[in-house]
Amino acid sequence: MQVSFSAAEITAITAARAQRGGTSETIRGIAALTDAAPGDLSFLGNAKYKAEVALSRASIVLLPADFAGEPDPGQLYLLVDNPSVALARVCARLEQRLWPTPAPGIHASAVIGDGVRIARTATVGPLCVVEAGAEIGERVHLQTHVFVGRHAVIGEDSWLMPGAIVMAECKLGRRVRLHPGVVIGSDGFGYELVQGRHEKVPQIGLVLLGDDVEIGANTTLDRARFGCTVVGEGTKIDNLVQIGHNVRVGRHCILCAQVGISGSTVLGDYVVLGGKAGLAGHIKLGKGSKVGGGAAVTADVPAGGFVNGSPAIPYLLERRIAVLRQRLPDLFRRVDSLEVQLRDEKRLSPGQPGPKMPAP
Amino acid sequence: MQVSFSAAEITAITAARAQRGGTSETIRGIAALTDAAPGDLSFLGNAKYKAEVALSRASIVLLPADFAGEPDPGQLYLLVDNPSVALARVCARLEQRLWPTPAPGIHASAVIGDGVRIARTATVGPLCVVEAGAEIGERVHLQTHVFVGRHAVIGEDSWLMPGAIVMAECKLGRRVRLHPGVVIGSDGFGYELVQGRHEKVPQIGLVLLGDDVEIGANTTLDRARFGCTVVGEGTKIDNLVQIGHNVRVGRHCILCAQVGISGSTVLGDYVVLGGKAGLAGHIKLGKGSKVGGGAAVTADVPAGGFVNGSPAIPYLLERRIAVLRQRLPDLFRRVDSLEVQLRDEKRLSPGQPGPKMPAP
Amino acid sequence: MQVSFSAAEITAITAARAQRGGTSETIRGIAALTDAAPGDLSFLGNAKYKAEVALSRASIVLLPADFAGEPDPGQLYLLVDNPSVALARVCARLEQRLWPTPAPGIHASAVIGDGVRIARTATVGPLCVVEAGAEIGERVHLQTHVFVGRHAVIGEDSWLMPGAIVMAECKLGRRVRLHPGVVIGSDGFGYELVQGRHEKVPQIGLVLLGDDVEIGANTTLDRARFGCTVVGEGTKIDNLVQIGHNVRVGRHCILCAQVGISGSTVLGDYVVLGGKAGLAGHIKLGKGSKVGGGAAVTADVPAGGFVNGSPAIPYLLERRIAVLRQRLPDLFRRVDSLEVQLRDEKRLSPGQPGPKMPAP
Repeated sequence: MQVSFSAAEITAITAARAQRGGTSETIRGIAALTDAAPGDLSFLGNAKYKAEVALSRASIVLLPADFAGEPDPGQLYLLVDNPSVALARVCARLEQRLWPTPAPGIHASAVIGDGVRIARTATVGPLCVVEAGAEIGERVHLQTHVFVGRHAVIGEDSWLMPGAIVMAECKLGRRVRLHPGVVIGSDGFGYELVQGRHEKVPQIGLVLLGDDVEIGANTTLDRARFGCTVVGEGTKIDNLVQIGHNVRVGRHCILCAQVGISGSTVLGDYVVLGGKAGLAGHIKLGKGSKVGGGAAVTADVPAGGFVNGSPAIPYLLERRIAVLRQRLPDLFRRVDSLEVQLRDEKRLSPGQPGPKMPAP
Repeated sequence: MQVSFSAAEITAITAARAQRGGTSETIRGIAALTDAAPGDLSFLGNAKYKAEVALSRASIVLLPADFAGEPDPGQLYLLVDNPSVALARVCARLEQRLWPTPAPGIHASAVIGDGVRIARTATVGPLCVVEAGAEIGERVHLQTHVFVGRHAVIGEDSWLMPGAIVMAECKLGRRVRLHPGVVIGSDGFGYELVQGRHEKVPQIGLVLLGDDVEIGANTTLDRARFGCTVVGEGTKIDNLVQIGHNVRVGRHCILCAQVGISGSTVLGDYVVLGGKAGLAGHIKLGKGSKVGGGAAVTADVPAGGFVNGSPAIPYLLERRIAVLRQRLPDLFRRVDSLEVQLRDEKRLSPGQPGPKMPAP
Repeated sequence: MQVSFSAAEITAITAARAQRGGTSETIRGIAALTDAAPGDLSFLGNAKYKAEVALSRASIVLLPADFAGEPDPGQLYLLVDNPSVALARVCARLEQRLWPTPAPGIHASAVIGDGVRIARTATVGPLCVVEAGAEIGERVHLQTHVFVGRHAVIGEDSWLMPGAIVMAECKLGRRVRLHPGVVIGSDGFGYELVQGRHEKVPQIGLVLLGDDVEIGANTTLDRARFGCTVVGEGTKIDNLVQIGHNVRVGRHCILCAQVGISGSTVLGDYVVLGGKAGLAGHIKLGKGSKVGGGAAVTADVPAGGFVNGSPAIPYLLERRIAVLRQRLPDLFRRVDSLEVQLRDEKRLSPGQPGPKMPAP
């Protein structure tokens, strides 16, 4: 992708509060502090990398307002409220070039069922299938190879990337983004063992995604047994996550990659699940609770709670136990030594009987 | 989805043994006991929710035959052998509306290779590809964007949902269901390190799925190095599961989401693997054995065994150790205290030499 | 698949150094030692199965040069440098039949954007989409339902299997293999919490795959926030793996199934990650380091290091601790016993004060 910004443009986009030094370079790329070369824009996103600023060869560096150092000659420091947010604003400009707004219309190769309602401003790309009775809102973009099942509803300004699949009856809010290969509305996993065979429990509910939900590549959300599997407004889900039937995820949650949530579990708003965390079924995680990466949560977590480990327990306790666990070899040695000492003592003072101890 | 059943219809479908009370409501939805409103059908699927029955506003509640309570006015209790199975029968009626039987035929946009045999009663939906020499059985439904590779065989009454992929030579039994994005027959993961480079070990075997196998969204099953990767009749596999090359899964097994099975491992019939369980390669799990969620199984499990933990050990032992692990901080304190006591004792009785103890 | 080789053909393909016995059977299949029947080729790939050779009914067995036993009548032993490599050579012949080289050309159902460059020797299969400005190299095979986004580049001799997705701007080296459902270049997972809402951090970088990279089914690689997510030459990645934004994987690494790597983590060359291993973000794994299956790596690993467990620690230490952990019930009993003994001692010698001990 071609990038080209003048120093003045970067200053304007980032709404810089102050500046030090100056550069005549055209910004042609963005890079981390130590990777940057002249012509690059860089930024201090995390105070722990502060020492790298002075070493950076970036032509422009976005810095927090209280940053103390001085730029090299030909280098521009821009002082901003939040360097990460400022950088994001520059990147948002570039994003428009990476993902230009598609022209509205239905590609000739798309297959559209009976009674489908597609807004005039929507784009249905090549080789998409929209089944009978589905509704596609204003400015929706079905990119390519997208499937929208019978009577499904896609809210306005949503973007379904290549190979995204929305099964029948499921409903997406506005500004939803589905990354490639996402599956919304596969059957929940439910069977009854009858005479030695697993009889399928029909899964006739649906999946409901709130506004501004974003879902990562190849993530799967199962439809409810009945009723709804729900993901609340503003929640962001990473790649390869599995969400079971009848799960209810609150608003503004963060679910990192490879998380798995078993059926009927309920998450409050602002819950954060670390990567690979697994949640048992039929439990509740309170508002704002957090789960560490890889944790196995088998019981309710109170609002604001932070758990980790397998099975998950309060985070600080888990951390302490994890440290003690690593000292187990030492603990076994210490207990060995205590036993030897007690035995030796008894040998040395034979007048005292040694209760429960075998003869040395 | 429009739902509309009279009380008499529900009574008939569920084959109720007895009833208490009555309702004139039309059933328009299905909901859990505490979520239900008038017009809803509900059920007691798990005795632990018994207390919720009296609180439920559902118009009809399916209950076990020995249930003791009385309905509210305008409420109907139906006593059945198994409320979950009875509900499933109602849902099965609705499922037919959700997933109506497609009309047989090959969609004009499908791409069919040479020498393909497609049964007259089969449906090949939009944008499917069936490569040369493949066989599609009676009443098979390839929904949309399905790929069936060269010489693959799809058994009668199977349903391959959008984006399901069956690579060359693989064979599916009858009534197999592949959910969206399933991949059958990707290469097994095998390399030989030769002069610093990983040379590919060709994977020329296939995948064989028995009758009534159901496989969840985006799950992957690798083809064998040679011979077959096998999943036995009636086995159900959840979403995002990985099955390595030459694995043999028995009949009527249950594999929950995000399970991973390394190459050449063998599962007997009726094995149950909890979510996220991982199995090492070249091991055997005996008939009816169970693995807890997230467990890492590194050795054989005997028939009927139940293991958990990482590495997995017998379930009850793991549970006990998990509890003791949480008491490690206390154990370290106790050992500290024992050491102090022994040291103090020695100080108080200086006539006794303190073997192996440093001077206090 | 039809297999048919004479003993002479097998001898030639495997470049056998010596032979014992002989067979007139035509080789019609390949099987493990104990599964093999007359007409099968088998091999001793692992010395631990040595005893199975004498029991095998295979018509031809590939054996290491120093193997001592004698074949049964009608059975041929071929002595080779490396039986696994020799077998791979036979399988490579069969692989050509399983995956014949496709005829060059663009299928009529493929959708090709403006300004796309497709080499004359490339094959663009049915229902593929190649967006504007993309480049498809010599002898590339886009099988079916493949998506190649705007300005993406696919290096020569690469093979993208059904449903593989390469998002805009991403670049693949030569001889890259993407298995079905792979997603290259989905957005990295980055948000800033601003006034209670997760604002998206634009992900405008790309993904760069080196030569000879192979990636398993439904694996996902996120594009960089800016700059590149990189996978080095010759690295092999299994199914359902997640690679976060700005990760750099070295050359000739092995990443087993369901691995997850968080953002900005760096792997040196020849790193091996066991199945289901999870790596925290912003850490470094040195050249040739190894991570055990299911391990959770939260800190740097030195070159040549081998870690395991959760959180991961040096492999041998983890192994020792895992054993001691299983002896926790015994350790608690021993400490109970020590406490009882000390208490009893004090009772027996009342002249000594029992510091810090409660009265018995």
